[in-house]
Parts: sequence; structure tokens; C-alpha cells
Amino acid sequence: MRYKFIIEYDGTPFIGWQRQAGQLSVQGVLEDALKTALRHPVTVWGSGRTDTGVHAIAQIAHIETEKKLDTYRLFESLNALVRPYPISIKSIEEVADDFHARFSAKKRHYVYKIQNTPYPPSINKGHVWWVRPKLDIQKMQQTADLMLGKHDFSTFRASECQAKSPVKTLDSFDIIQNGEIIEFHVSAKSFLHHQVRNMVGTLELVGEGKWSIEKFKKAFEACDRTKGGPTAPPEGLYFESVDY
Amino acid sequence: MRYKFIIEYDGTPFIGWQRQAGQLSVQGVLEDALKTALRHPVTVWGSGRTDTGVHAIAQIAHIETEKKLDTYRLFESLNALVRPYPISIKSIEEVADDFHARFSAKKRHYVYKIQNTPYPPSINKGHVWWVRPKLDIQKMQQTADLMLGKHDFSTFRASECQAKSPVKTLDSFDIIQNGEIIEFHVSAKSFLHHQVRNMVGTLELVGEGKWSIEKFKKAFEACDRTKGGPTAPPEGLYFESVDY
Repeated sequence: MRYKFIIEYDGTPFIGWQRQAGQLSVQGVLEDALKTALRHPVTVWGSGRTDTGVHAIAQIAHIETEKKLDTYRLFESLNALVRPYPISIKSIEEVADDFHARFSAKKRHYVYKIQNTPYPPSINKGHVWWVRPKLDIQKMQQTADLMLGKHDFSTFRASECQAKSPVKTLDSFDIIQNGEIIEFHVSAKSFLHHQVRNMVGTLELVGEGKWSIEKFKKAFEACDRTKGGPTAPPEGLYFESVDY
Repeated sequence: MRYKFIIEYDGTPFIGWQRQAGQLSVQGVLEDALKTALRHPVTVWGSGRTDTGVHAIAQIAHIETEKKLDTYRLFESLNALVRPYPISIKSIEEVADDFHARFSAKKRHYVYKIQNTPYPPSINKGHVWWVRPKLDIQKMQQTADLMLGKHDFSTFRASECQAKSPVKTLDSFDIIQNGEIIEFHVSAKSFLHHQVRNMVGTLELVGEGKWSIEKFKKAFEACDRTKGGPTAPPEGLYFESVDY
């Protein structure tokens, strides 16, 4: 039997999604809790990894087990078992045997949040990137539009990235002001390692007026990470959802 | 000279707004930081106290000093000085000598947030009250409407309340669904101690279906705290703003 999970977490205390020996990871907490609940070890397959400090509103995962599970009871016991950590299991449902959280994913959605205020965040501390200079949203949106469609994203690719190709297709990139928060909504079938944070970190330079749109365009077309801007910090990034 | 401050804070680590010997309070942190910045002790007058764990989006305060202050420099140095704590100074401006954060207040606005989901909060942990049973917003709104205008609010008054009279005038009470969050927006010139949390804690019983609107009405009209519902927890409450 195969079961699909929707999982929310606050990334702050975690080394990231992926299990690593001796470190606190989301996958590790879930696998330990499931081992207790199911009384056998099980691998939790995530739709994608998140880095240290990155949050998830709806990470998707699946497990494979020979048991027929009472999903309501498992939902209750899992949420109780993970309670020491900021992880919530939002739903559990049985899915077809060919469903795969990672390989069946058709589109992934991320949102990056900047708090654009002269004062630092308090209520939002750890959940936004604080940027002081007033950002020009229209200019950032115009710049973001350059990246729509199929491109070589090497300029925004982390050196540790294990993807076979730097070519990805960006389906949408919408920048929205929501009170004192600027939200960067990005969607694609898949992303390179650090791609969202590198795109946002470079767009921020344009928003601040440090970079012109032309400079951004040249950097993007150079397909060279050293030409891009800095990596935006992890605490502003949320893995938002996955379409299947 | 008199200066008005707009202050945001995450109430989680604080005993509350009011200075108390040997305890961490918002007023205490601000007064200590101002003593360092101004090189003389000063009293910070808040527009209203907040309890342990209650947050503020825009608490208002004022100080009185003989010095003419460079408000921009003070804004910078104060935000730096309070940085170990989740407090932000959002603005500082000079005001007329007869301005008083507490006594000049014409209207106070609070918002109370319930996360109404079958799973516990992770990203919103400490910033919402988690309520599992699906709440009926329309029924809660109908019930809240009974409290609009001038009434004796003894049913929702904490025993420690120091107000002279239990009679208050509620100007508005709007209940709004915002995704998985239900927001209770309440406005009045002033409130009794725990009034908002007691009103929300009792409305929640109606929303859950445990209480009928009639039962709520009787409890309200009894003007007796023992007839009201429980006090909603502090972490869902935000002091939102003050009109002058």
C-alpha cells in the first residue's frame, strides 16, 4: 500500500528535509515517528529536499508499507508523536501504487517572503528576509519576467547542485505586495539547487536600484554563477505546494 | 519634549507589557534601552498593558524628556539596543505636550487569531490558538453582534480587573476567515481586563456548537463571570492599533 502525506514545518530548528546522521531533520523525525506508529522501519520519500532553515507549507511525501493503514488513527498518532517539533501532518491518504512524491510531481510552487521595512521583524522573525531599502516591485517584476520559459539557469545554480542539466522551465514568477511583506511566487516542474534563493537574492539588487535590468539580463545570459547576486537567506523561503 | 513610539513585539518571551522587578517585560526592555540611548532614566507610558504572551502589531507609547531628540538616530540606536528581544520600534515622532499614549486614546483595536484545522500549527506556533472542531463563523458573528454598543461586560471581566465600571461600548466585532485562520477584529475606546480573550473563549463554544446563541445571550445578560466561557489563550491575541 502507498500513502501520501501533506506536511507543514517550520524549518528553523532543522538541518533540512533530508535525514543526516546525528542531525535533526524533518525526514528523520517523520521516519522515527512512523517506525513507532507502524512498528517497522519505513522510508519517507519527499517531493523535494529543503535546505537548512527553509519552511514548508505543504511538502508532499509518500511511504510504502505492506499494512493496510487506518489513516485517521495514523494522522492522530503521528501528529502526537512529532509534537516536540514544529512539524504538522496535514493529511494522509491512500494513493495508487505508481504514485511517487518526487517523480510524479508535475509542478512545484515556492514562495519567498521579504519584509521590506525600515525596522527589523519581531512577530515575523525567522519567517522572512528583512530588507531595509524600499524595493521597486514593478522593476523586479519586469526583471523576473525575463526568466519565464525555458532557459539555462547556471547563473542561479549552487555549485553543489546535482541536476544533470542547468536548463529549466519557469512557468510563473509573480511578485506581490502584501502589507509590509513582498511575496515572490515561483512555479516550475523542478528547480536547481538554491535556484529560488539565488534568483530572489539577485532580483533584490534590482529592486534596491543597485543593479539595472540590463545588468541582470547580462548576468542571466552569462550562465555563470559568479555573475549572479547573493543567495537570499533560507528563512524567507517556503515550499508551498506540488501539483501531480 | 514629548515623543510618540509605535512598537511591535512578539509577546512569547515576556511577562507582559508592564515592568515588573526581576521579570522580562516589554516596558522594562524599552526603558533600559532608552536609558542607555538618552543617558538618563525615562518612563515609557503605554497605551494599554498586554498580558503574558500577548503580541502587539502597533502598541503606542510616549516618553517625556527635556532633550530635543534626533528621532532618526534614536530609531536606529533603539532598534539596535533591543535586538536581543523580539521588539521592533516602528516609528518615533515628536508630539504635542498634551499627547498621552493612554489617556488620549480614542479607540483601541485588537485582533484574535484562531487556527481552525484538524492538525496543530507549526509555522504559526505561538501565534494562534489552535481549535480543532470546525467553527461556524456565521453563528459566531451573529452572537458577537449581540455585544455591539454599550453593555455591562461583567461576564467577560477578569476578577483582577481594576476598571471602575464594567460598562463598556463595543464599536465593532468582525469575524473573518482568512485561509485556515479565523480572525476576530474588535474595537472599543477601552476594554476590561481579559475582555477580548473571554469574549473569544465564549464565542468559540458557540462556534463549536456546544452553546446555543440563546445560552450565550443569557450568560452575557447575567453580568457574572462564572456564567461565561473559558479565557482564550494569550498567544492568539494581538494588540493591533490605537486611534487618537
